[in-house]
Amino acid sequence: MAIEGRDDKRGRRIRLGMVGGGQGAFIGAVHRLAARIDDRFELVAGALSSTPEKAKASAAEIGLDPARSYGAYEEMARAEKEREDGIEAVAIVTPNHMHFPVAKTFLEAGYHVICDKPVTTTKAEAEELGEIVKRSGKAFALTHNYTGYPMIRQARAMIEAGELGAIRIVKAEYIQDFLATKVEDTGSKQATWRVDPSKAGAGGTIGDVGTHAFNLACFATGLTVDSLACELTSFGEGRVLDDNAQMLLRFKERDGVAAKGSLWASQVAVGHENGLSLVIVGTKGGLSWHQEDPNKLWFTPLNEPKQLLTRAGASGLDAANRVTRVPAGHPEGYLEGFATLYAEAADLIAALDEGRTPPEGLRVVTIEDGIEGMAFIEACVKSSKSDGAWTKL
Amino acid sequence: MAIEGRDDKRGRRIRLGMVGGGQGAFIGAVHRLAARIDDRFELVAGALSSTPEKAKASAAEIGLDPARSYGAYEEMARAEKEREDGIEAVAIVTPNHMHFPVAKTFLEAGYHVICDKPVTTTKAEAEELGEIVKRSGKAFALTHNYTGYPMIRQARAMIEAGELGAIRIVKAEYIQDFLATKVEDTGSKQATWRVDPSKAGAGGTIGDVGTHAFNLACFATGLTVDSLACELTSFGEGRVLDDNAQMLLRFKERDGVAAKGSLWASQVAVGHENGLSLVIVGTKGGLSWHQEDPNKLWFTPLNEPKQLLTRAGASGLDAANRVTRVPAGHPEGYLEGFATLYAEAADLIAALDEGRTPPEGLRVVTIEDGIEGMAFIEACVKSSKSDGAWTKL
Amino acid sequence: MAIEGRDDKRGRRIRLGMVGGGQGAFIGAVHRLAARIDDRFELVAGALSSTPEKAKASAAEIGLDPARSYGAYEEMARAEKEREDGIEAVAIVTPNHMHFPVAKTFLEAGYHVICDKPVTTTKAEAEELGEIVKRSGKAFALTHNYTGYPMIRQARAMIEAGELGAIRIVKAEYIQDFLATKVEDTGSKQATWRVDPSKAGAGGTIGDVGTHAFNLACFATGLTVDSLACELTSFGEGRVLDDNAQMLLRFKERDGVAAKGSLWASQVAVGHENGLSLVIVGTKGGLSWHQEDPNKLWFTPLNEPKQLLTRAGASGLDAANRVTRVPAGHPEGYLEGFATLYAEAADLIAALDEGRTPPEGLRVVTIEDGIEGMAFIEACVKSSKSDGAWTKL
Amino acid sequence: MAIEGRDDKRGRRIRLGMVGGGQGAFIGAVHRLAARIDDRFELVAGALSSTPEKAKASAAEIGLDPARSYGAYEEMARAEKEREDGIEAVAIVTPNHMHFPVAKTFLEAGYHVICDKPVTTTKAEAEELGEIVKRSGKAFALTHNYTGYPMIRQARAMIEAGELGAIRIVKAEYIQDFLATKVEDTGSKQATWRVDPSKAGAGGTIGDVGTHAFNLACFATGLTVDSLACELTSFGEGRVLDDNAQMLLRFKERDGVAAKGSLWASQVAVGHENGLSLVIVGTKGGLSWHQEDPNKLWFTPLNEPKQLLTRAGASGLDAANRVTRVPAGHPEGYLEGFATLYAEAADLIAALDEGRTPPEGLRVVTIEDGIEGMAFIEACVKSSKSDGAWTKL
Repeated sequence: MAIEGRDDKRGRRIRLGMVGGGQGAFIGAVHRLAARIDDRFELVAGALSSTPEKAKASAAEIGLDPARSYGAYEEMARAEKEREDGIEAVAIVTPNHMHFPVAKTFLEAGYHVICDKPVTTTKAEAEELGEIVKRSGKAFALTHNYTGYPMIRQARAMIEAGELGAIRIVKAEYIQDFLATKVEDTGSKQATWRVDPSKAGAGGTIGDVGTHAFNLACFATGLTVDSLACELTSFGEGRVLDDNAQMLLRFKERDGVAAKGSLWASQVAVGHENGLSLVIVGTKGGLSWHQEDPNKLWFTPLNEPKQLLTRAGASGLDAANRVTRVPAGHPEGYLEGFATLYAEAADLIAALDEGRTPPEGLRVVTIEDGIEGMAFIEACVKSSKSDGAWTKL
Repeated sequence: MAIEGRDDKRGRRIRLGMVGGGQGAFIGAVHRLAARIDDRFELVAGALSSTPEKAKASAAEIGLDPARSYGAYEEMARAEKEREDGIEAVAIVTPNHMHFPVAKTFLEAGYHVICDKPVTTTKAEAEELGEIVKRSGKAFALTHNYTGYPMIRQARAMIEAGELGAIRIVKAEYIQDFLATKVEDTGSKQATWRVDPSKAGAGGTIGDVGTHAFNLACFATGLTVDSLACELTSFGEGRVLDDNAQMLLRFKERDGVAAKGSLWASQVAVGHENGLSLVIVGTKGGLSWHQEDPNKLWFTPLNEPKQLLTRAGASGLDAANRVTRVPAGHPEGYLEGFATLYAEAADLIAALDEGRTPPEGLRVVTIEDGIEGMAFIEACVKSSKSDGAWTKL
Repeated sequence: MAIEGRDDKRGRRIRLGMVGGGQGAFIGAVHRLAARIDDRFELVAGALSSTPEKAKASAAEIGLDPARSYGAYEEMARAEKEREDGIEAVAIVTPNHMHFPVAKTFLEAGYHVICDKPVTTTKAEAEELGEIVKRSGKAFALTHNYTGYPMIRQARAMIEAGELGAIRIVKAEYIQDFLATKVEDTGSKQATWRVDPSKAGAGGTIGDVGTHAFNLACFATGLTVDSLACELTSFGEGRVLDDNAQMLLRFKERDGVAAKGSLWASQVAVGHENGLSLVIVGTKGGLSWHQEDPNKLWFTPLNEPKQLLTRAGASGLDAANRVTRVPAGHPEGYLEGFATLYAEAADLIAALDEGRTPPEGLRVVTIEDGIEGMAFIEACVKSSKSDGAWTKL
Repeated sequence: MAIEGRDDKRGRRIRLGMVGGGQGAFIGAVHRLAARIDDRFELVAGALSSTPEKAKASAAEIGLDPARSYGAYEEMARAEKEREDGIEAVAIVTPNHMHFPVAKTFLEAGYHVICDKPVTTTKAEAEELGEIVKRSGKAFALTHNYTGYPMIRQARAMIEAGELGAIRIVKAEYIQDFLATKVEDTGSKQATWRVDPSKAGAGGTIGDVGTHAFNLACFATGLTVDSLACELTSFGEGRVLDDNAQMLLRFKERDGVAAKGSLWASQVAVGHENGLSLVIVGTKGGLSWHQEDPNKLWFTPLNEPKQLLTRAGASGLDAANRVTRVPAGHPEGYLEGFATLYAEAADLIAALDEGRTPPEGLRVVTIEDGIEGMAFIEACVKSSKSDGAWTKL
């Protein structure tokens, strides 16, 4: 192991605007931090809240130029076009229902877009957005941030290299407990919109964290889900949307095997903070990974002792090492994984702007992945309403 | 914590015979060891194999009196009745298909029976056996041995005491990898009968380990499964029985909540030796337990830090402490858990023989539990054949 | 991995007596359980307490023939000689100060001896006992029970095979918290004699658990301690003996390297139940093992990923597999490790009685190891009194 | 737990220069990343290498204005004074021997200084630097970065609040394996200077990582080391400096107890990547923390179950929460811990510049801590040369 740090700039800083992410928000602050880590973006404008006063106060709090703090995202899209130093890309960190209109506006205005997940509130919207992205020629990056963890990249590379043989079983879990009680009745901004179908869409927990688990299972294995049999439950009294989702999965055949799977997403699972995990079983080996201990990947080659693969450690593959910043044993975490998505988005944006082929090895999560995610949510809802009938995505 | 050991005899030694468990067997040796640990049984006779020479050789190997090594179990049932020092109870450790005829024979001949799981090969047989047990007035103890682990007793007692509130979610897993390759083609005695429907019954993995997971989930929570939606798979080429089973569970309502669950049983899960685990989520707390680390129970009271409860440690409840032998930090394991089933069977047998009420706190797994287990297997098979339709037990 | 159990008898049952181990004792119960597990001994007589009534009551509790329950050990030594079915071996499980007189008596009377540790209360006594053992021609087995854990055998075999290269560093810890408060003032029998120099000898914690750590470090590595620099502390108010010991170690040179070490023994370490652990560093690899998780051994070959070696699992060596009873993933624990010492003592006794060479692979802890242990305790005390001066063993 | 992110700016961005940290360096990149995370600094100038071409190339790589990339640090100190937008603070990330002259130069020129550890190469230098800092009136922050981990802050706050009672024992370890082989012979820049006394000072491993362990033990407990008994070893053939250090510690009395301790620092400990850990034992509770799993703190209140305290989780204290950025279960790591030092240095600098009292709760590591660290290294060397005699700091 080389004891070296990494802080190389692979290109110039891109001027970034943000929609959403004002006071009381969670993911906006995360995007800002993540964008800074690798220094590929400079946040210079924002429409941080749909409430003008709150937008202003939020901008002040994070040191944004007041002249570039906008009360409405449409205004930002217009005004920044007028500036020589106007933004080149926008990060969308609003509740789900605003993703589509904002993304549409900025893509059609010629901006690159980095968008939080789930991509929209319906599959139809997502498909329409897909067309818009295609027409725009701009970059669209969906922040399924867990794809940025080095050991997830390692898992994917190992599977691509055949180290697991044919995949037979995939188990994905994303379990939290922040909705174990009726926190939406206590005024929590985070809880309130997540349980409201007009803002969150048709999926509650399944949209909020289930899509992450779904995306990650597909990302890591390279498999495609064919159909699912789902049971959605709302344990919280009076909740309209699901707060717990359990399902079985059938994957499309690959390497002569049609893998089976299961997925559990919950936000009432008392005792679990952010329990995203994957277990992957192949004919020649098994992997397991837990988000709360992200620098480790457990690998068992068939009939051999289990190995503990570590980020930047012995057996680290290029695909993992290229998205790591500090030596083995110096934990990287959630923000660094998120930062990798920003760094790769920057690489993509720079390449598009300069008419170059993007560098190899980028793993930007695309609008197609977003459409798959919406198909997943809709299939979950449909299956659950049909008493768990197997439902195609 | 008191630093004390426990080796008190609570009664006389019961004379035991064994059917099955000859050379090459696994579970027979385990039963013999388990029976010795608390010194409540004395193994004095056996019909260790259906092959007479092998029965003889096996008996010699474990130091059994040659005069009491029988070539056929029926012979043992008859001959031991003639002796003043004849056996009082029999342990049945054969492949599944022999459980029923052997149990029937010995119960009807007036012996107590300790029987390995699954109890029979069909639910109908199990129900018939239930009648036989009832008529016999003898003890019948099913060795779902994982119920003997102290921290499982602790979990059950905590749930009974309301420490988790209403149960919302139960996840049970029992995943192994010993059938990841076609070991049945290599002559392994253990593998061969397990994949053969004429010996194992209708369930492969679901019968071998799935029933343990099902039983344990019910034992720990006290809940009853109402119905399940199951996907059985045979990954091993040419295997008739399942080697992987995934399912969703609906429990019957209790405390105003109808809990949801999932269960994964596998014997192709590369990287997992004997991965039996439970996650239990209630409105007021969560528990998790892993068989490979059985002295620990993780408990998270709602909105409090997670606690690591240890066998015989701080917060150990009577229900757990009474089935433990050595102080905290001195690991007890699989054999000790198994031994508790024998000790409790002895308590039950002694009470029945002496016309006493059995001591409080016994948790002997009954023929009713066995019938439930067969109902489970049959529901799994039926649901899987109906494309995962929800199926009542 | 073969999924098989093991319960083969490798010889006849040896008739055993016990001195000490009456009501309220800890280790006596453990010896009895351990002796039963592999069925090589039959406990038939006892002098379980120096108080006759207590001896009687204790004997009744464990089902001992009242005629063979003795009020004094000398009586048992004499009386059992008269019987045709008299005991052949004795297990000594008294407080430390009685080990020497009892062992002397029984060895000189022609019995084999299994003795708890530390072997005596002074090195001089231990050396005298060494002479007595030699003259007697009888087996003497010291129950440093942690040497019986399969993964400790695995570690030793790996080091013997050179898998770690030359050993550079050894860290041993044995930390508990049962003396964190003044439990000796509460009437705890276990605590009371352990803090009393007239019963425990010159070492408190260093004798009670420190000797285990010392013995295990030497057993696993095969190294010999040359000298040590020790700091003994009595944190408990008014305690005469140490309840915490920290020291540095210098080992004798082997393979061109004089290894360095450290050892921490404590009984006031709040948060630690029975925290015995080893870290071993060589030029080519590193190992670590924790008693509370005894079925696992962590192995890192130089510049390779860490491996999790498991009892009876992939990469299990013969030296470990021969002392294991159930398949990988079915945890064995403290009692099974202890049982291995009894099984091996039985093998040794049988061989001596029959004039045979004992079977290969036995790892009986000898009186020489006991003498080393006493040298260790005395060196600790001497070094600590000399302000931590390096002191030869 | 509130599910909120934090990205509030508590002040303006400070203009920063850097000395050292050019190509091939490890810690320079880390400082740059850490400085960006909370957006309190803007890196605008650098003397990144003492080789002018390398300085230039390094500056280009990280996007520094070529006009402000200097070939010599003295030049930067002078030239930046001339600019209106000149740097206000400097980060010193050179090998150890340059810390003193560079810090002296910049402090005397009126800049604030952030300096990597160990502060100098001798205690005398450190004391001289202490005088310079005092005269300068400028901020001096030493980057013992592990003090920035939230769960270390939690530990400190818990101890200050008396939750552990009087501290009895402290165990600190910092073990790595990157010098297990003679990597310095392979041209590794990182290894080469670390084993060279003219660049590293009198301590090898003890200076490189031992000082971190020493600092952290004191920081977390608030205790002061009185004296130590040390054994330094150079296992690598021909190495002049230590690559392994083991020692016993005596702390000064507090709360009526003089705590005892041990410290192990190693860079030859095969199997350990960055194994910094603390075990702290008090009369009323125990704590343990491991750097490779930094979001967790294990707490055992006397006679209660062990608790797993998590960053931003239940039981998180203000002292910990104020230095955390994302919710519980979203791991923060090494860079975030390091970033906290930069954020707190910014708070200190801003307060000094504006003549304000710094905000409460800052935990900037001071020159006094640096002097203690040098006293520690010198005591280690002195004790080891005196055959481990107890040596005052």
